[in-house]
Amino acid sequence: MKPNESLLGLLIELQALDRVPRMGYALRGVAEPESVAEHSFHVAILVWSLAPRIPGIDLGRALELALVHDLGEVRIGDLPMTAGRYFDDGAKHRAEERAFLELLAPLGERASSLAAELAEHASPEARLVKACDKLQLMIKVATYQGWGAGGLDEFWENGGNFPDSEFEPVQQLYDALRRWNLDRQGPAEGPA
Amino acid sequence: MKPNESLLGLLIELQALDRVPRMGYALRGVAEPESVAEHSFHVAILVWSLAPRIPGIDLGRALELALVHDLGEVRIGDLPMTAGRYFDDGAKHRAEERAFLELLAPLGERASSLAAELAEHASPEARLVKACDKLQLMIKVATYQGWGAGGLDEFWENGGNFPDSEFEPVQQLYDALRRWNLDRQGPAEGPA
Amino acid sequence: MKPNESLLGLLIELQALDRVPRMGYALRGVAEPESVAEHSFHVAILVWSLAPRIPGIDLGRALELALVHDLGEVRIGDLPMTAGRYFDDGAKHRAEERAFLELLAPLGERASSLAAELAEHASPEARLVKACDKLQLMIKVATYQGWGAGGLDEFWENGGNFPDSEFEPVQQLYDALRRWNLDRQGPAEGPA
Amino acid sequence: MKPNESLLGLLIELQALDRVPRMGYALRGVAEPESVAEHSFHVAILVWSLAPRIPGIDLGRALELALVHDLGEVRIGDLPMTAGRYFDDGAKHRAEERAFLELLAPLGERASSLAAELAEHASPEARLVKACDKLQLMIKVATYQGWGAGGLDEFWENGGNFPDSEFEPVQQLYDALRRWNLDRQGPAEGPA
Amino acid sequence: MKPNESLLGLLIELQALDRVPRMGYALRGVAEPESVAEHSFHVAILVWSLAPRIPGIDLGRALELALVHDLGEVRIGDLPMTAGRYFDDGAKHRAEERAFLELLAPLGERASSLAAELAEHASPEARLVKACDKLQLMIKVATYQGWGAGGLDEFWENGGNFPDSEFEPVQQLYDALRRWNLDRQGPAEGPA
Amino acid sequence: MKPNESLLGLLIELQALDRVPRMGYALRGVAEPESVAEHSFHVAILVWSLAPRIPGIDLGRALELALVHDLGEVRIGDLPMTAGRYFDDGAKHRAEERAFLELLAPLGERASSLAAELAEHASPEARLVKACDKLQLMIKVATYQGWGAGGLDEFWENGGNFPDSEFEPVQQLYDALRRWNLDRQGPAEGPA
Repeated sequence: MKPNESLLGLLIELQALDRVPRMGYALRGVAEPESVAEHSFHVAILVWSLAPRIPGIDLGRALELALVHDLGEVRIGDLPMTAGRYFDDGAKHRAEERAFLELLAPLGERASSLAAELAEHASPEARLVKACDKLQLMIKVATYQGWGAGGLDEFWENGGNFPDSEFEPVQQLYDALRRWNLDRQGPAEGPA
Repeated sequence: MKPNESLLGLLIELQALDRVPRMGYALRGVAEPESVAEHSFHVAILVWSLAPRIPGIDLGRALELALVHDLGEVRIGDLPMTAGRYFDDGAKHRAEERAFLELLAPLGERASSLAAELAEHASPEARLVKACDKLQLMIKVATYQGWGAGGLDEFWENGGNFPDSEFEPVQQLYDALRRWNLDRQGPAEGPA
Repeated sequence: MKPNESLLGLLIELQALDRVPRMGYALRGVAEPESVAEHSFHVAILVWSLAPRIPGIDLGRALELALVHDLGEVRIGDLPMTAGRYFDDGAKHRAEERAFLELLAPLGERASSLAAELAEHASPEARLVKACDKLQLMIKVATYQGWGAGGLDEFWENGGNFPDSEFEPVQQLYDALRRWNLDRQGPAEGPA
Repeated sequence: MKPNESLLGLLIELQALDRVPRMGYALRGVAEPESVAEHSFHVAILVWSLAPRIPGIDLGRALELALVHDLGEVRIGDLPMTAGRYFDDGAKHRAEERAFLELLAPLGERASSLAAELAEHASPEARLVKACDKLQLMIKVATYQGWGAGGLDEFWENGGNFPDSEFEPVQQLYDALRRWNLDRQGPAEGPA
Repeated sequence: MKPNESLLGLLIELQALDRVPRMGYALRGVAEPESVAEHSFHVAILVWSLAPRIPGIDLGRALELALVHDLGEVRIGDLPMTAGRYFDDGAKHRAEERAFLELLAPLGERASSLAAELAEHASPEARLVKACDKLQLMIKVATYQGWGAGGLDEFWENGGNFPDSEFEPVQQLYDALRRWNLDRQGPAEGPA
Repeated sequence: MKPNESLLGLLIELQALDRVPRMGYALRGVAEPESVAEHSFHVAILVWSLAPRIPGIDLGRALELALVHDLGEVRIGDLPMTAGRYFDDGAKHRAEERAFLELLAPLGERASSLAAELAEHASPEARLVKACDKLQLMIKVATYQGWGAGGLDEFWENGGNFPDSEFEPVQQLYDALRRWNLDRQGPAEGPA
């Protein structure tokens, strides 16, 4: 299963991202939960749909960042949100970056450049991907709730899932989602 | 479940690509088969890894094409290869293009430009995506066989899954996969 | 996997109908959705339970038609309802009939006689199977909603899923289902 | 979920046969194992394909028996083969018959007539269904082994799964399966 | 797959308890239902959490009983509650005990001592395990309902699932669960 | 979903261990992989079967340790083996211990005593649980390979999965497993 050719070896290993479930959904009882491969696809599609509406974004670069931002999880798994408070400061982030760099060694310089850009959020493309990472989370939550999932309400109450965004099209989608959620809960819940 | 905002509606509908199985694997007994979302992700990653090795490829455009090439399947499903011989010439292709265009109407001109480029294989980026679409298929077949799948041998015998490619890095990966397959079958099977 | 004996080859191929999901449910988030084999079973049971209440129905013939009406999907897959509007007129139907006939070639004349009867709805048995095909769809929708599925409401709004039936026992079950749906939505929704 | 109309209540309850796994496969590690609904479908298809080759078989009656022979399992579950040796003589059989009769009470006389015919194997149709029940088991075993299942060899060694059949077309399919199994194990295993 | 060493053979066979679904959930539409291995784990954890609050309980013995109480189901399967009324008096219980004893033969005397204690409910430890077997059922039902399951209401109406318990901490958890269920149904349902 | 009673809240949260897959299997293509709840059950059963053969072991204490050793994973997930090399020394271990203690706060002193014993491997019971944790891993690997899994060979090559054990019955099971693995690979592989 491990061909000598290193790029092929990498590509075969990455197929296993189909089998890494997004733990936040799994732990809240969603059957057949989204995989990390599926999440990454949807973040890339979201970036793709929004980037042309945002002045100054390099679409190609933003898509690269979206596609690779979770590749390291094929070696670390997808840690649920709750894991964050039990690790030493930055321990989880350092592990992800090391896994990312070792995994992508066959690609040389490209990997380290992408890792640095993702880590520092220096570029607008990296910040857009970060915002879309959260936004796709909430779009999926809304989708699952529409399908009947009952254990996901707490996602709406976590302010970190709805950060103020510097990008207006991102903010508009957040607002649309919030309205969707209020409508879903019925007229007695508050003003739309 | 159907917010009024059309972009949000589109994005929610696309989440269902997680639940469209790639039928070629399902029909040959692969449990938990790849979804169309996962396939699209891996084609994009493959394009991303190869594009810089191919002179004259616009990476951003190639990634766009890879990400969207199967979006229409959220309305049509993933038809297995065998379906091809039962439809009138071009009927399946026309249906896919119509579904793609209607689905992506909220994105206006972008969608029709991408659809035309994919349909006519006019650009090198579109041809690269088409080649990577097949190559990812065989990488997944190899992965599943490494995991124990027993019903996939016929994929190796279908010449259409190993077209000659104009792009040398694609051809090299095809060759590496063929060697992997011969090794897998043992020394008596032929010269490695 | 492909024994030379043609009937055995056919029977083995048909086992894969267990792995063809009914796409309408899958796309609306039902986990572990009904397979085409399961659907066909339930349509046959429905025909079996109703046929004796309908004068002039040949039960044996009706059961044959119910069992085979979707066999061709082992080569074409189960196209979701939405696919219908993207194909040329009749393209989907012609493909299904060709797949059916080629698949069942080992059975000779029997297959073409059944295909013709299903296509033309000439016999009361074929019309009963067609009505039960829809009726079983709505029984399954009701079952899934009872189990907690949240994405299936639109099935109730599609008039094509509740055609007037020439067969009174079919009509009675439709009416009972509609009452079930009103009751489910609570007293404020309208008169039961 | 329990409409007052008894036939509708029965039909809704029977949809749950999709969720009753055939335990013999599940216990031997087959993922996504066949459901009782799928098994019943395939037995009916097998009967349908063979009946016209057997003089004196009433196809309609044979199909009825095939479709209903395991309906009682929606109340009892599918007991694995090994369960047989732990129950008192006939206890399992009596339970299945009682469940069948109580479940199908809305159908009145039809149910008891079918139960008696199945229990006593008096008619050739009932004996054909019984033979096809075993034959479909082995066709599925062969299918799963072709797909890569590794835990099913013992089915071939159990003589009870290959009874001598009074029906020549059944016997021919048994023989074809045995040849398939020998071929699968390679040339050293014996004469094909 | 069957090593000669009998203890190893037993341990390998028991791994298959992961694939025995708890049928009560499966038949009511819960996707990815609890396995018998998972149920046994949770009963043991429940016993572990409560035992120190109950005077006179031998924790080690109680844990043993909790862990083994359903081992026989690897040979018999998990019969749904409804099965009970179709078997002769005690037939199901006798079968479970025989399966348990034959399965655990490699462990000699220990098995028969545990079987006798479980059967006769003579010890407080055996009665605690029996109470926790029911209590864990209702904790799981509450969990699944929180996750969106819609078909489980009847469990709350079955008095046998809420027996009066001689153990006060068990009774307190029952009461807490009942309050949870009333709260879940909203203020109009009755006094909390 | 969060009742006020803290013990009930804890017990409901722990039900989600059914949905935490053991990532080592998932990443190597095992469908429907073992959950952490199932793993913990099997470790406890293994401890239960071996403890009486080992002088000086307190069975009750050993069972407690086996049942709780992975409870913290309901907040952290199951990190695959490969994750180990990317985290700072001890970071993963510290996170697990913190999660364990916070999760089990409703149980007070009991939790910290168990955590300390597990962390320091001071007692023979803690060392037995640690050895059985590895041994159960390899029993499951053998089970999956018997069922047809193809991606697990590397587990046999990792010396850390077969540590020398101070407990003779553990060592005997290791040896039996190694013989099973040699037999499985056929006569040419070496002396059985």
